[in-house]
Amino acid sequence: MDIIEYLKTNAELIDSALNECLPPEDEYPDIIHKAMRYSVFNGGKRIRPILSLAACETVGGKKEDALMAACAIELIHAYSLVHDDLPAIDNDDFRRGRPSCHKKYGEAMAILAGDALLTHAFYLISKGKNPEQNNRILEDVSYAISTFGMIGGQVADILNENKQPDAPVLQYIHTHKTGALICASVKIGCILGRGTEKELDTLTKYGELIGLAFQIKDDILEIEGEKGKMRNSDEEKSKLTYLSVYGLKESKYQASQLIHKAIHILDEFWGSNTPLYQIAKFIGNREY
Amino acid sequence: MDIIEYLKTNAELIDSALNECLPPEDEYPDIIHKAMRYSVFNGGKRIRPILSLAACETVGGKKEDALMAACAIELIHAYSLVHDDLPAIDNDDFRRGRPSCHKKYGEAMAILAGDALLTHAFYLISKGKNPEQNNRILEDVSYAISTFGMIGGQVADILNENKQPDAPVLQYIHTHKTGALICASVKIGCILGRGTEKELDTLTKYGELIGLAFQIKDDILEIEGEKGKMRNSDEEKSKLTYLSVYGLKESKYQASQLIHKAIHILDEFWGSNTPLYQIAKFIGNREY
Repeated sequence: MDIIEYLKTNAELIDSALNECLPPEDEYPDIIHKAMRYSVFNGGKRIRPILSLAACETVGGKKEDALMAACAIELIHAYSLVHDDLPAIDNDDFRRGRPSCHKKYGEAMAILAGDALLTHAFYLISKGKNPEQNNRILEDVSYAISTFGMIGGQVADILNENKQPDAPVLQYIHTHKTGALICASVKIGCILGRGTEKELDTLTKYGELIGLAFQIKDDILEIEGEKGKMRNSDEEKSKLTYLSVYGLKESKYQASQLIHKAIHILDEFWGSNTPLYQIAKFIGNREY
Repeated sequence: MDIIEYLKTNAELIDSALNECLPPEDEYPDIIHKAMRYSVFNGGKRIRPILSLAACETVGGKKEDALMAACAIELIHAYSLVHDDLPAIDNDDFRRGRPSCHKKYGEAMAILAGDALLTHAFYLISKGKNPEQNNRILEDVSYAISTFGMIGGQVADILNENKQPDAPVLQYIHTHKTGALICASVKIGCILGRGTEKELDTLTKYGELIGLAFQIKDDILEIEGEKGKMRNSDEEKSKLTYLSVYGLKESKYQASQLIHKAIHILDEFWGSNTPLYQIAKFIGNREY
């Protein structure tokens, strides 16, 4: 399969669905709807919602059944970026080469746009076809982004700025701040595709592995890559990163080991010519 | 019935349930859990969750069945206050006579504590006994606090600071910013008590009336009452209030008319010696 084509086609599908499910820009009070759309349509790769669709198909489901929940995941990702960029948190003026939400719409609107994206994500979850499945998705997603998941990781990240490198803390930050939502993306796809408990276990393990690998790659690309963010913004703020704890070479090795494990798990079940296998490889090789 | 005793007993029930359902203060990362609890346990009257319990009982349900969702409503209320108080929004240093969350824990933690309270509210909704009911609650609550509800009201409130008094805009702000969540509190109680569609219609109307009356009373108490907030903070910021549009006398008259309508609706169905009837009267008479 051609993974680049697969990612492109499905990103377009997600974009189209996001466009459908977000409030129109001219709906009163229009500034908040503009700020929400500005934060969502930012050239993102849609890797998280694509993981949901791919997981759904992997276990024999139709990807349309996972589309709303996949959009919810992307809105949650967008909310987390809008709030992370705020002056009181990471104080990032740019995101993917454009002014961040608070630079464009002001701080009050950015706080509320983040709140609104999170709220709308949960509204979308309620709109799935099957209420029992929706409830399970609600439980998994809300836990994954709670203080025991994504928010917990973000808090630990802030608390450990300008601190000595510490491997267990770093592991906590990365698995929670980034890994939890990526893993949840995979899990909800499996649930909505009506995967078995065994399949869910396998894909959860896969999700954990690629979630951590994704963030290590992010740390590497902060140094080596050409990202839209200002260069080395994490390093400027003395954030705890894989590079600060392990150095570049060991970080690359660890990322490749995680990807290797993830594709090994998939290979046993579904072979290598499958989207999730190829997405894992893509995460390992990504350069942006 | 003794409404003061009723409110006290049920506020204690809610407080005890909130204490059970919030993450322990010493759980890592503890600062966020401390900030969440600080923002929830602030001497609030718990009027919203009590409305949920009372509505549930009014239609013949057991209030225990509405307890988790009622706690979710209170967490949402707490999240909205934490974010409203932020420097970029209302910039309130005090809340009920204590430092507001960002003054106590810093701005980054206040943003994240608000996010975490909202997220935890949705997690609690998933924990109700009946997944189908949970899904309906999810849909109603997430809509009520969306940009078409509470957030929309907050946005309009900000956009209309220092603007000329305007009755339709004021009506929009009050029914959305405060009214939507109060109305949702009543509705979810009715749903969880397995009320009929007719009962739901009636209680929705009741909820809309007391929701607006509650906010008008709030505007009046900003001037007349002894609140923990600094005096006239809305007036200092030139917020649009009922008093700025209608003056004190007319505001009081309108509030009493709304309460009158609300209790009239209830009287027809359930008589006057009932919690919801007495709560409406209490809102009309409250002085703090």
